[in-house]
Formats: sequence, structure tokens, C-alpha cells
Amino acid sequence: MPTDPYTTSLHYDRRLYKQDIAGSIAHARMLARQGIISPQDAEAIIHGLEDIQDEIEDGLFPWKPELEDLHMNIEARLYEKIGEAAGRLHTARSRNDQVNVDVRLYTKEAIAGAIQRIRRLQEALLKVAQDNLETIVPGYTHMQRAQPVLLSHHYLAYFHMLQRDRERFQECLRRVDVLPLGSGALAGVPYPIDRKFVAAELGFSRISDNSMDTVADRDFIAEYLANAALCMAHLSRLAEEIVLWSSAEFDFLSLDDKYVTGSSIMPQKRNPDFAELARGKTGRVYGHLIGLLTVLKGLPLTYNRDLQEDKEGLFDTVDTLHATLDVFAGMIATAQFNKERMRQAAEESYVLATDLADYLVARGVPFREAHAFMARLVAYASTRRKPFRDLTLAEYHRFSSKFGQDVYQVTVEASVAARDVPGGTALPQVKKQLEQAQALLQQG
Amino acid sequence: MPTDPYTTSLHYDRRLYKQDIAGSIAHARMLARQGIISPQDAEAIIHGLEDIQDEIEDGLFPWKPELEDLHMNIEARLYEKIGEAAGRLHTARSRNDQVNVDVRLYTKEAIAGAIQRIRRLQEALLKVAQDNLETIVPGYTHMQRAQPVLLSHHYLAYFHMLQRDRERFQECLRRVDVLPLGSGALAGVPYPIDRKFVAAELGFSRISDNSMDTVADRDFIAEYLANAALCMAHLSRLAEEIVLWSSAEFDFLSLDDKYVTGSSIMPQKRNPDFAELARGKTGRVYGHLIGLLTVLKGLPLTYNRDLQEDKEGLFDTVDTLHATLDVFAGMIATAQFNKERMRQAAEESYVLATDLADYLVARGVPFREAHAFMARLVAYASTRRKPFRDLTLAEYHRFSSKFGQDVYQVTVEASVAARDVPGGTALPQVKKQLEQAQALLQQG
Amino acid sequence: MPTDPYTTSLHYDRRLYKQDIAGSIAHARMLARQGIISPQDAEAIIHGLEDIQDEIEDGLFPWKPELEDLHMNIEARLYEKIGEAAGRLHTARSRNDQVNVDVRLYTKEAIAGAIQRIRRLQEALLKVAQDNLETIVPGYTHMQRAQPVLLSHHYLAYFHMLQRDRERFQECLRRVDVLPLGSGALAGVPYPIDRKFVAAELGFSRISDNSMDTVADRDFIAEYLANAALCMAHLSRLAEEIVLWSSAEFDFLSLDDKYVTGSSIMPQKRNPDFAELARGKTGRVYGHLIGLLTVLKGLPLTYNRDLQEDKEGLFDTVDTLHATLDVFAGMIATAQFNKERMRQAAEESYVLATDLADYLVARGVPFREAHAFMARLVAYASTRRKPFRDLTLAEYHRFSSKFGQDVYQVTVEASVAARDVPGGTALPQVKKQLEQAQALLQQG
Amino acid sequence: MPTDPYTTSLHYDRRLYKQDIAGSIAHARMLARQGIISPQDAEAIIHGLEDIQDEIEDGLFPWKPELEDLHMNIEARLYEKIGEAAGRLHTARSRNDQVNVDVRLYTKEAIAGAIQRIRRLQEALLKVAQDNLETIVPGYTHMQRAQPVLLSHHYLAYFHMLQRDRERFQECLRRVDVLPLGSGALAGVPYPIDRKFVAAELGFSRISDNSMDTVADRDFIAEYLANAALCMAHLSRLAEEIVLWSSAEFDFLSLDDKYVTGSSIMPQKRNPDFAELARGKTGRVYGHLIGLLTVLKGLPLTYNRDLQEDKEGLFDTVDTLHATLDVFAGMIATAQFNKERMRQAAEESYVLATDLADYLVARGVPFREAHAFMARLVAYASTRRKPFRDLTLAEYHRFSSKFGQDVYQVTVEASVAARDVPGGTALPQVKKQLEQAQALLQQG
Repeated sequence: MPTDPYTTSLHYDRRLYKQDIAGSIAHARMLARQGIISPQDAEAIIHGLEDIQDEIEDGLFPWKPELEDLHMNIEARLYEKIGEAAGRLHTARSRNDQVNVDVRLYTKEAIAGAIQRIRRLQEALLKVAQDNLETIVPGYTHMQRAQPVLLSHHYLAYFHMLQRDRERFQECLRRVDVLPLGSGALAGVPYPIDRKFVAAELGFSRISDNSMDTVADRDFIAEYLANAALCMAHLSRLAEEIVLWSSAEFDFLSLDDKYVTGSSIMPQKRNPDFAELARGKTGRVYGHLIGLLTVLKGLPLTYNRDLQEDKEGLFDTVDTLHATLDVFAGMIATAQFNKERMRQAAEESYVLATDLADYLVARGVPFREAHAFMARLVAYASTRRKPFRDLTLAEYHRFSSKFGQDVYQVTVEASVAARDVPGGTALPQVKKQLEQAQALLQQG
Repeated sequence: MPTDPYTTSLHYDRRLYKQDIAGSIAHARMLARQGIISPQDAEAIIHGLEDIQDEIEDGLFPWKPELEDLHMNIEARLYEKIGEAAGRLHTARSRNDQVNVDVRLYTKEAIAGAIQRIRRLQEALLKVAQDNLETIVPGYTHMQRAQPVLLSHHYLAYFHMLQRDRERFQECLRRVDVLPLGSGALAGVPYPIDRKFVAAELGFSRISDNSMDTVADRDFIAEYLANAALCMAHLSRLAEEIVLWSSAEFDFLSLDDKYVTGSSIMPQKRNPDFAELARGKTGRVYGHLIGLLTVLKGLPLTYNRDLQEDKEGLFDTVDTLHATLDVFAGMIATAQFNKERMRQAAEESYVLATDLADYLVARGVPFREAHAFMARLVAYASTRRKPFRDLTLAEYHRFSSKFGQDVYQVTVEASVAARDVPGGTALPQVKKQLEQAQALLQQG
Repeated sequence: MPTDPYTTSLHYDRRLYKQDIAGSIAHARMLARQGIISPQDAEAIIHGLEDIQDEIEDGLFPWKPELEDLHMNIEARLYEKIGEAAGRLHTARSRNDQVNVDVRLYTKEAIAGAIQRIRRLQEALLKVAQDNLETIVPGYTHMQRAQPVLLSHHYLAYFHMLQRDRERFQECLRRVDVLPLGSGALAGVPYPIDRKFVAAELGFSRISDNSMDTVADRDFIAEYLANAALCMAHLSRLAEEIVLWSSAEFDFLSLDDKYVTGSSIMPQKRNPDFAELARGKTGRVYGHLIGLLTVLKGLPLTYNRDLQEDKEGLFDTVDTLHATLDVFAGMIATAQFNKERMRQAAEESYVLATDLADYLVARGVPFREAHAFMARLVAYASTRRKPFRDLTLAEYHRFSSKFGQDVYQVTVEASVAARDVPGGTALPQVKKQLEQAQALLQQG
Repeated sequence: MPTDPYTTSLHYDRRLYKQDIAGSIAHARMLARQGIISPQDAEAIIHGLEDIQDEIEDGLFPWKPELEDLHMNIEARLYEKIGEAAGRLHTARSRNDQVNVDVRLYTKEAIAGAIQRIRRLQEALLKVAQDNLETIVPGYTHMQRAQPVLLSHHYLAYFHMLQRDRERFQECLRRVDVLPLGSGALAGVPYPIDRKFVAAELGFSRISDNSMDTVADRDFIAEYLANAALCMAHLSRLAEEIVLWSSAEFDFLSLDDKYVTGSSIMPQKRNPDFAELARGKTGRVYGHLIGLLTVLKGLPLTYNRDLQEDKEGLFDTVDTLHATLDVFAGMIATAQFNKERMRQAAEESYVLATDLADYLVARGVPFREAHAFMARLVAYASTRRKPFRDLTLAEYHRFSSKFGQDVYQVTVEASVAARDVPGGTALPQVKKQLEQAQALLQQG
């Protein structure tokens, strides 16, 4: 039948050539081993395919868009090279079988690539955490300065988000790592094939259980996309923070020149374009997830051509996720932290209000009263634009007689040190977290 | 501060009362154990909370919407009951800590509920598979009859989709099953609390690693929603098939009266409303997923009030998923299969064309030629509305002289039996699948 | 047939009681007018329905969940009140007809409500714009201070976003404002009804064109949701800005106490919870949109029960949008702007770099050179933490000899005044914009 | 600064070259007209740009990926051609201004293209409707045969869905058709430009009102995407129906060979791949919509680099929508309808049950009773697999004595003819609908 641009996929499925050839070679080998085709045919097929791989990698392959997809291109070329034996490669294998193998091999590599890149970004975060065990920064809730924390502690939070991403990808791998080949059009094939041999050849851990499910299944892509979406959500959170921290208002962070761009009009600009783009690209990945979920909705068994729509979103997500993780690893590793400014932001604000309330509680003031005193004291001090440390003891006494000279020992350091519980921001705890994080990095 | 309907959550967070009270009791017990509050206070608190739980369950609790949320309602009531000691319950615990514990406990139960219901539906599918080891039905690709399969094989495909859902929920559980309490506002708490004790009391497997991450983290909900969305996608596929198979055109399936509704106007209608609604409710769950992903996008550390938007979508998804799984378990268990009609659909169609092409190939006709012959033969037969078995040998010979008398032995039974590879539709393979499936059901 | 919670809708469709009764009364009146039912029956029906409306509004209506939905409840109650005549109300009308009328009437009101609330928010924005014709604030690109603008100009930007929202809702109304009644189950009704009369009674501008389309159509809801989603996107942008501007770092804006909440732990906190929640609620509305689009995907003609899923998302979106618009109108109207701080932010930064480059260009320096000089000058000044105005002429001369004494006349005021093009930030232009905006507000 | 693949857009923004050059020419012309640049410079710029357009169209343009985007490529090339004057083209214009003009011009054309293609599909639908004024087909609700309708009526339903799409695109155009140029970086430009002249040159109906809004605004793309999503939803509904109607079970419809594909394995297959792909591509468009909405969520004023993510989704949506509309126009125009089979499906089923109930009602049986009788009669007949017309009068009498000989006059024709209300399926009404539809097609 003639080709139509509407159904053509060559422009995007070309990227699967390596997987496609590997899958075909394993299949040919198995067919010969089982006596389904002759050893001579198998050899011709395998050599032909190896030639074709060379041609593709050398840029010499004669791609023909009119042949619709990668598979027809390779098939036609193999025929030109080895003649009729080429046709025997398709014994006991459907087109769906073949594409399915390709995409599963590709997704396995994509997951490995994501895991490796996440680990690299985690390393960059750990490095920052290691280098900032004494850097104090305001911790925020509601974008309001809340309590002082170690910068180290702050960046370890992102380490753990990514750790969960890594776990999810790892687990998802189990469901991708399954050989589909042997499902035929939908019912299995009427040949004595050896599916486990092919699985072993291609490095799949197991073979699929039910041919109809296998033909209809795109769960592994949906699951990959959901994991990628959540990972991008995490990166968008970090991106937002980088954008804010690079602003004149925060001024906590200075990005390396490699990660800022200037303006054609405004000479003073150092725009955090990479972080902004990363934040924006979150939308694209969410979109690909919803796109595939929409495709799957209400689709009866088994194969329907709608499923061809699985690939472009997958490919774009893989490219986006890999590139974004790479950008963040570099951006975090080269960022300069303005420790001075961070500490000042902590000290000039009222992040110690909780600690001062606790101070009063420790001196017998009921919690709610202490809280109310402090609210009034903060209002007083902020109207006068005075940080706590600049208030006199007399001023403190206006709010509660329980304040003593030792109120001046309630410092950001003391506040941090007091949160000495597992997971808390006190130095010993953060050091433990660092060790755990190192261990997690080694693990998998 | 005064309450505003915009920020109020009581109308939906009430459902967390059990988790909230359990969390508070465990916290109180720990505080006393660590000497942070007195044993007397702890006892008063615990008894007070137990009373409150009784009041709620007996419908006697005086809910006050003006108190904004569940937590303030319980807190205020506890104060009425035991006075000042009530306030001491909040030592070393933030509101976020508390809500976080509640939602994690709730999600753990929701996952357990989903897993149990998926298993029940799997059982119903297995029962159908068990009962239909000899029922032949056309297998479809592109909604066109493709090759004959066992009905048993067909329903096992859905078993495996659900098996993957079950695995995903199980894995997700690991990341939900983490005690957040002890994170305070964001930095940890300045009290010598024992987080592991609280975790043990509440049945959490471990404690969270980093307080800032813990406060900002809603991954476990997003992951639950993604798993639910994929599970609903599966159910929507089955729903679509049930709707089609119940139509006059297919007539493969007759739903139990419990799962059809009539029409106020059309007396003949037996509408598969439950399946349709299930298919439609897929949209709602996709929507909740995209809703939470949108909330998370670009949100800096740590807590931001946007995160309050995590709960309604979660609750509605849990209700929808549980109810839909229950409906399917019942609907599948009670459906009547029209085996006669299925077999007839297989036999009157051209689903044996592949097998007849294979027949020719086995007699030396090259694959492509055999395929072309068969395409012409199908065109000939379908114009005359004759099934293959009604063609004379003379008619077969118009297309190829290789056809012999044994062409009449190419039957749907023979076709099914020929697909005797792991995962294929031949009876021995399907029996193996059934055993595997039984084993998987026992497992977890 | 028995009711099942899965198909029940009473808990959410109760809110349509007014529309339902109005629709029934108009239908009854028409039936009598056309001689399809007797005048006596019509009168009994109308009085019965009016009674029922009173009962509902007085909280006396005996709702029965086992009757599944609003319509069955009213129908059964009417039967109790007036006996057999009640049944004649359903002559020439299907349940779908009836529900469709209700939802279209409801959506018309929802759109009117949205338009009115948008206008109120636009008024609040105009008030701020009016009051700040001389307030200078840094304009931002990439979250970096870029060029000085009038605060007035800044808030007029939001006015125009909302103006487009208003237009879209207005246009959408045309497609909602169509009487569906008379479509029957799908094919029209076999009675001489007068659809135009009913349309006129209920205030619909026209009747629908094709009964099958009418029964299957939920476009008007999807369109409403898309408009609401875009409107929420706008509000989320403003919300983000309010959150940032209320931070210690920006300190441009102080929200009224009504729109901040405190912290149970941190006495100093004034959290912009309303703005955060509004930003978060964007996710919920995006979710409802994608939910309905998912429902519609691949649904054949005409009615399928999936379509029952249209209502909850609609209702929640209406509630969310109305409440959010109300919150913003109040929040903007009561916000205090820290003009001092805004001006200082503009003056202490390098937002005049573009103007200084233009200054050099005007003195014959090629554009690219001027831009490069300024980039270096900014680097020099920012290292020394000096604003431009504190640089000496000698310092300026290090970068270009073209700088003269008049460089000190390049001020934020001069910069603003220079952008004197339609749509620009110069005062005369902003005044024109204000007039246009006032005119647009009057219009519709 | 050096280019990075992460920020590069050349691979997709190349398609805007025509719009970019047109925009620049108009800008140059205006600059000269206002005396901002010399006439000689303007002429050089215009000729240079015209040369460049020729080079691009002849495939001779030396694209340089390292120059990041289309605009830098053209700018650099113009410099090579005309030297320093090239730089003066950027007077009074920012990069955002330029890109914004390009995308708005592109979107205007995209909308015109969509409108034209929708009209072509509407014409194809009208042709089918015209040709099938006497073809009777079962109308469906819940995928169950409900009442007989004219095929003409059925396809007019799709005409009206598309009519609404056309209206929405038309209205959206108003908000796209606005010149952004003159907004500068965000505040307007400090030159006496003439925005209305540029608007007129480029065919824009008006100029934008507020520079900050203009820079930040991507509403017009979001609105285009929402309209495209709803249009694809409609096409997915038609696609689903085509898939079903082409199945062996329905057999209502035979697609032209151009719109089916065969199977590599199954010689009998005629798969409706185009309809399936169209249904699947709905997901991609939904995804692009949610992608852009995600980008916009929480983005403060004015330009942020996230907004660069607006283009790829737009371009892919335009390509998808255009191609899909073209496919449907051809597919519908060439489809063969199996009128025989449709009529048979109507006659052999119980779609006349409503009419028979009405028959009884007309003979004095109360509605509910008549409905109940018919339900029992249908059960009786369907168990015996007898259509109504094959029941004897004696059999009818078992259910109600009111049945007379004239019961055999209740035919599908009579049923259709009885629905003689505006919008109903009776022939005179459908003819009126056809006339209206023709008029709507002429309109706009």
C-alpha cells in the first residue's frame, strides 16, 4: 500500500536503529538454533544487518521516507543486500513484536541514563552540602523567613527528592525489562521458538506472560513518564529557588557565567535562563504524560494504531530529562553561594522568634502566652526596623519580665544547634545525614 | 485569627479523625516517655482523645466549622475536656507534622485497600479464565477480528495489567510508610523526642531523613495518584470492551441486571451504565493527578499553603478507585458470556487467514506470495459472504493449487492449538499462565 | 431498578433544584399551551413544583438518597403531592433533556457570576493604578530588575489579562445560551411541542439545531472550564507576585491582616495563605479541564453515561473561580504598597543601564559598543555595591569619554518618561490606558 | 556568550522565517518613515532581508546552529550582506518584540488554515447528509440501539460540533490579531515609533494596550490550543465511530483503500489506521494544552525564559490539527455506507419499543404501564430472537389487549417521521437543518 505522511514514523523512529538491529540479530540467531531457518540464512541476515548498522553510523544509509518507518527501511535494504533470505527474518515475528522489543530496549537505556544523571546531580548537591556545614541561611515557609537552618541541610532536602526519583526509576525498570517477542500479532506464534534464549541474548531478565497483554501494553512508558514528570517537578522547585536566590532581592546565589545569559537591550542583566527553561520544560513532560494517558483511555484489546503515538512523547521526555539533569549538575556544581548575605538575612530577620518563645516557655510562661508576647515583640521591633539583637533588655522587658541577660545567647547558631533530632538541622544530625546520603549514593 | 471559607478544610479533612487521634496519642505517649510532659498530662490527653473518638463515631461531636479544620476542632474539644494539659500535646510538634502523619497513615490504608480490591478483581478474572478454557473468541487488533484466541487467554491479559498495578502500589507503599513527625516547622524540634518510638507505635517502617524535605514532600501522593491513573486506564479499557461486547452488534456478553440500567423512555434498553461511568471516571483521576503536579510545579522549599490542595484530589481518587474496583469485581463475576456467539463470530469471519497462509508456506509457497493469495481469497469469499469452511476445494484452487483436502483441518481449534509458545493462546500455555497467575495471587 | 452509590448523583446535583423546577414549569406551561396536557394538569404541576421549591428552600424537603438523583426526588415528591398528573410532566421530555436544561441554565449563571467578579477585580486593579500614577517600581524580566516602570502600568497589565478572560466568557455564553429541550432520547420527540416558547420562558436566546448533537454535546462545559483555567493561570501569576512582594526580600507589599495568617509555632509569621491557596487551586481547575476532555475523548454518539461526569468538575470550578476572584478583589483593594521601598529598589539597582547605553548611542557610540561599555560599568559598580548615581564622573570616564555631567539626569523618572509610545510606561500613556480601561469596564 | 543546546531553538523556530522577515521589513520601513533611521539604511535592510528570504526558500541559506535561533541567524547574515546598517534594524525593538510578532503572524495563519479545513470537512459531512436523506440507521445511546434516525441527521450532528469549533477559532482570532511590537523589553521604547503604521503593514487589526502585559502574554496560544483540543475531541468521537462502524460486528461503513492498511501477518485485515491514529493524536494535543498551562502557572511578570516553551507545542498542534482535518475530509468523502446493513440493524432490533409504548399511551394506557408492558414484550421477543414485525397479533395481545392490527404500521419510517420537531430526525426537519447548515457554511 502507498505511504501517507499521516501514518509515517521514520522521522522519529530512526533513533531506534541500534535496538532494532540487535533485536533482529537475536531473533535470527534463535530461529537458526531452533532449526526454523537455516544456519546459512541466519549468517547472511546477521552480516547484512551488521553492514546496515555500519552504513547508518557512517551516514551512508539510503533512508527512504516513502518506506514509512525504520523497520521497512532496514527490511528493504537487507533484501537489496542478501535477497530472499531477508524475508525469512520475519518468520515467527510480527511487526508489533519487533517495535515492542526496540522500545523496551530503548526505555531500559533511558532509565539507566536517568539514574546515572540523577546520581551525578545528587553528587553535586552533596558537594554543596559538604562545603556548607557552617553556612546559615533562613529556612522559608510560605516564602517567609521562618527559622535558621544550615545550607547543608537545605540542599540535602533536594538530595532526598532525587533519591526517591532514583528508586522509582529503578523499580520501574523491572517492568520494562521483559522480552515481548514471541507474541505474534496477538496470540503467540505457531513456531517452536525459544523466547528465553532471545531474552538472554538481548539482556532481558524475563519474558512476558501473556501475548495479548504484551501487544496492548504501554504501561512501562506511562510509568516512565510519570516518574519523569515527578522528577521534573522536583527540578522545577529547585529551578524556582535558583531564580529567586539569583535575584537582586535575595542575592544568595551567583550562577556561573555558563548558566546565565545577557540581554540584547539591558546591559546589566544576568538572567538565569537555564533554570527558567528547566522550570518551563516541566510543562512539556507533564503534557507527554497526559498525552499517553489519554491515548490509553478506553482502548480495547489488543493493538490499536493509536499506540503508535507512544514514541514521540517518550523520546522528547528522555531528551528533556537527560539534558535538564545535566544542566542542573553543572549549574549547582559551579554556583557561588553568598554566605555573608545569607547569614545577614537570617540575623536581620525575626527567625529566632520561635526560639525566644521557647526561651519563655522554658522559664515557665505558658506556650500560648509566650507566643502572644513574641508576636507583639516582633511587631514592635519590625516597626522600628531593629533586629532582635539590637533590642535592649529594657525593651524586652516591656513584653515579659522573664527575659534575662541570657536572651542574647539565643542566636541563629544556638537555634540551629537546638534542633538536634534525627532529620533536624543541628550539625551532628546533618553530618549523619551526609553519611547516609553517601551510603545511598554508593548503593545503586 | 478569624476563619474564612477560602482557607477552611473541615468539610474534607474530617475523614482523617482516626489517623489524627492515633497520631496524637502516639505523640503524647512519647512525650511522657521522654520526660517532656508529665505522665499525668499524657494520660489525660490520651483519655480525652479516646473520648473524642467515641463522640465522633457516635455522631455526638460538636463540629465547629468556624474552627477551620479537623485539628483545631479536636484541639478545642480536648481543651474543653481536660483543660490546660491539652496545650501540652503540641509540644515538639507543628501543625504540618501532625497533618503529614494523618495523610501518610491514610494513604497507607488507601494503598492496602487498593491492593486488596485489585486482588479481588483479579480473582474474578481468573474465575472467568478458569471457566472458559475452551471458549473461543476472535482476538482483535484495530477493532478488526484478527486471530482466534481462548477467552481464558483474553481475560488473563487483564489479570496481568492489574498485577502490574498491584506491584506499583506495593512499591509506592515503601515511600509512604515513613514517619514525618519530628520535622517541626521545617528545621526539626528543640526537644529530645524519640521519633523511632512514635514510628513503631503507629506502624511506620522508618522515620524521614531530612526535615525540610519532609515538610515540602507530597511525592507519595503524586505517586499514588499516578498509580491510580494507570489502574483507571486499565479499567477504562476493560470498560470499553464490556460496553462493546454488550452491544447488539457484538452480543458476546450479558451483564447481570445489577450492572445495567433501563431507560425512562426506551423500554428495550439494558444500558451498561456502570461500565460507562467507570470509563468516564478515568477523567477525574487523570485530572487529580495533573492537579497535584500543577500544584508542585515551581514551588520552592519548604511548606507553602498551596500544598493544602493535596487532600481533596487524593480522597476523591481513593473513593473512585475503590468503588470502581468493587464494581468491576462484581460485574465480571456475574457476567454471562455468550460462548455460542463468540465462536460463531470467530468461525464466520476470516480469522484463519494467517493460518491458511502458514499452510501454504508449509507447502513451499514463499511467505509474501502466500499472503497475497490469501488476501485475494478473503476478498473473494467476503464478497460472497461465505466463511472459509463453506468454500469448495475448487474455489480454493482458483487461488493456489497447493491447497489440498486437509485445508478443512485448518480450524479455529487448530489455530489456537498451534500458538503453543510461552505466553501464547494454546491450551497448555494458558493452563500454565493460570497456574502462574494463581501463584502471583497468593504472593502478596 | 435499585440504586447503587456508584451511579448516584444526588449529593452533587441537588444544587440544580432551582433550574430544574424552572425548566419543568416552563415545559408544563408549553405542554398545556400546545394542548398536549390539560390546563388543570399543568396548573397542578406548577403549583406542586412551587411548593417543592419552597420546601427545599425552607429545608423541609424529604431528600431520599435511594432515589439516586435530584430529578427522581422531585418527581416522586410531586407524585405524592398531586398524584398521577405528575407523570404527565414527563410527556415529550427525556431525562437528558431535563438535565441538559438544568446544566445550561446553571452555566449561564456561572458565567454571569464570573464576569461580574472579574469586573470587580478589574476595578480594584484600576483603583491601585489610579492611586499609583507616580509610584516607580522596578519592572522585571527573568526575575531580574530590568527597567523602571510605573506601578500603575504594572497593574494595568493584569487588568488586560482579565479583560481577555471577560471577553472569552462573554463569547462562550453564546454557545451555552441554547435551549436543548425537545431532543428527546436523541431523535426529537413525537409531540407538537413549541421549543421556542420554552426558550423564551427560560430566557434562552435560541434553540439547538440537531437533537443528536444536543444530546451528546458537553462543549459548553469544556469551553467554560478552558476559560476558567486560563483565568486561574492569570490569578496564579498575580498570586506568585503577591507572595514574592510580601517577602522580607522584596518587601514591596503588605497584605491586610484579613489576607494573612499566622503560625502556630512561629510568632513572627504573616503568611500570604490566600495568595498561596489561590495559586494552588489553579491545579484543581486544570485538573477539571483535563478530566472532562478525557471523558469526551473517543466517545461515540449520542449519550453515554460517562457524560454524567461533567457536573462535579464544573461545580467545583465555579465555586473555586468565584471564591478566588472575590479573594483577589479584596486582597488587592486592601493591600498597602511600600512605595518608598519600591523606588529605592529601582534606584539602587542598575535598571538605568539601558538608558545609559541609549545616552551613549545618542552621543554617537555604536549600539553594540555602548552596550558593552555599560556591561563593564555595571560589573564595576556592582562589585563596589555602588548605584549609578554614586559613581563619580571620573569613574564614568573609565568606560567612555562620552559621558558628561548630564549623565546624572538619567534618572528613573527620565527613563519612565522616555517610554512615551502607545502601551508604554510614560505617564501620558498610562493615563490614556487608564481611560481606555475605564471605558472597557463600562462596556459589558 | 556561547550557545548551549539546552537554550537553542533554531531547529524549531526556523519555520517562522517568513513572518520574521516580514516583521523586520515593516519595522525598518516605519523607522525610516519616522526619521529614526535613514532611508538608505532602510532600503539596504529591506533588500538584504529579501535576499535572505530567497536564499532560505532556495535552500541556500547558511544556517548556523551555533547562532542559537532563527533571529540571530538572519541578523548575522544581514550583517554579512549590508554591514553596519544591519545593526540599526534593532533600534526601538527588543528580541521579545520580534519573536512575538512572528508567533502572532504564524498563529493568525494557523487559525485561518484550521477554519478553512474545518469548512472542508463540514462540506464532506453535508455531502453525506445530502446523499442519505432516506438512509435509516439505529441511533445509539449507551452504545445500545435506541431509536431509528436518518443517517443524514446523524452526520449533521458532527457538522454542528465543527461549527462551534469554527466559531471559537474565529473569535480567538480577535485576540491574536494584535500587534505587540513597540513593547521593548517590557516598558515601551524611547523612540517616536508609529505602532499603527506597522500594524497596518503587517495586517494586524490593532495594537496591544499595555507593554508589560504584551511581553508576558501567551493567552492567544493557550486559547488556540484549547480550541484545538476540543476540535480533536470531536474528531476522536467521529474516529471512534468510524472504527466501530468498520468492524465486522457493525459493518455499516467501508473506508476507501486509501484510508485502511493491511497487516504484515494477517491477509484479511483492512485496518482503519487513519481513524485510530487521529483518535490517538488527541492525546498529543491535550498534552500540549496542559503543557502550556503548566508553563504559565505561577509565572510573575513579565518575560521569563519559560515562555520559550510556547512554540513547539503550538507548531505540533497546528501540524496535527491540519493533517487530521485533511484526513477526515478525505476519509468521509470516500467512505461507502452500507445502507442495507444499517436499515437491517434498525429493523431487526427493538428500536421501535418507544414508539410502541407511545402507541399504547395513545390508546389510553398510562405511560408507566405502557413502558412496563413493552419491557416485557422486548424480553419475550429477544429471547425468541424475533423482531417486532415477526410477532403475531396474538403474541402482542399477551402483553396488552390494546394492540390492534395497526401495530404493524409502527415502522422505522413512521418512527422517524413522527419526530417532526425543530432539531428532530423527521425528513422535513432534517431538510431544514441541511439548509441552515448550507447557510452557515457560506457565512464565514
